[in-house]
Amino acid sequence: MTKLIDFYFDFISPYSYLAYNKLKSLNKDNKININYKPILLGGLHNLGGITAPAFNERKMKNMKNDCELIANKNNIMFKWNTKFPINSLHLMRGYLLINDDLKEKYFDFCFDAYWKDNVDIGDEKNIAIILNNIGFNKENFFDGIKDLKIKEKLKDLTKKAFDKDIFGAPTFVVNNKIFWGQDRLDYALDEYKA
Amino acid sequence: MTKLIDFYFDFISPYSYLAYNKLKSLNKDNKININYKPILLGGLHNLGGITAPAFNERKMKNMKNDCELIANKNNIMFKWNTKFPINSLHLMRGYLLINDDLKEKYFDFCFDAYWKDNVDIGDEKNIAIILNNIGFNKENFFDGIKDLKIKEKLKDLTKKAFDKDIFGAPTFVVNNKIFWGQDRLDYALDEYKA
Repeated sequence: MTKLIDFYFDFISPYSYLAYNKLKSLNKDNKININYKPILLGGLHNLGGITAPAFNERKMKNMKNDCELIANKNNIMFKWNTKFPINSLHLMRGYLLINDDLKEKYFDFCFDAYWKDNVDIGDEKNIAIILNNIGFNKENFFDGIKDLKIKEKLKDLTKKAFDKDIFGAPTFVVNNKIFWGQDRLDYALDEYKA
Repeated sequence: MTKLIDFYFDFISPYSYLAYNKLKSLNKDNKININYKPILLGGLHNLGGITAPAFNERKMKNMKNDCELIANKNNIMFKWNTKFPINSLHLMRGYLLINDDLKEKYFDFCFDAYWKDNVDIGDEKNIAIILNNIGFNKENFFDGIKDLKIKEKLKDLTKKAFDKDIFGAPTFVVNNKIFWGQDRLDYALDEYKA
């Protein structure tokens, strides 16, 4: 059986972006098998009765500063998005909708737009630009994300994460062990390599 | 002016214990000037409108596991306390009351009892044992912590931390920059050495 590192993410999560960039630079030879697991972070927080740091004045202020420190230390291009937080529902549904061979590109474009280039990816015009860049029809996208199956799929994936005791993003799961937060990527990789 | 690293702590906080142990092993030559800043973590959370992870089922489960992982990785003797959480009010007031030359011992004994030896330090009998070990009169202790001045002092220190935008423990402050969590000790030390 191939070993996998499950990587639970939402584009809204700056720490997911940072972890993804760390992982990318550690995985230049593609030897780490990463299994991306989209969830709706807001939905997960609701299920778990958790108030996101974005909704606490001091935590929010710290989070911005903290992300900038981490990005600096790890040489990651990062810019705090002036439109944070946004509702990531359409984007996360979109990840499920997009063809498998375009998912990686979509993933990169969404994360870079939001956490590197200060783009408001809550705005349909900007989503359309991303879709154009990756070569996915925008009408198909905006129709597709209204499809009940896609809606239910994201709900279902979020609920499944919750049922595994996951409560935040990024979360890594290796050998059924849960590692929460970009600070625990090293620990997850230790488990992966063990 | 001597450089200082402010270390905000509460004995209730397992991450403060872990950070303290990391710092201790990094500071064997006593070249880092640490300024311990007692606060009442529960009070700080109340001021900041924060629900502590101890009061969220998933966060609590993760925190226990996470602390054990960190302790393992850093060779820190650690045992999750079966009586977590307790009310640390008396112990934190006690830190203010104890003579300066005994504070370090008291600090060590409280942290080790709670996070290494699984002692219920919410129990006065166990506090009495600690006091006996460090050589502080227990009647003076239990009378002293009822003193209005001591009560107000802890409140005041907690409020001052809150006014500096501190919202958790451990928090390190160096050059007026705030670093939250044992994961940021390295960053705080970078700033200290800069």
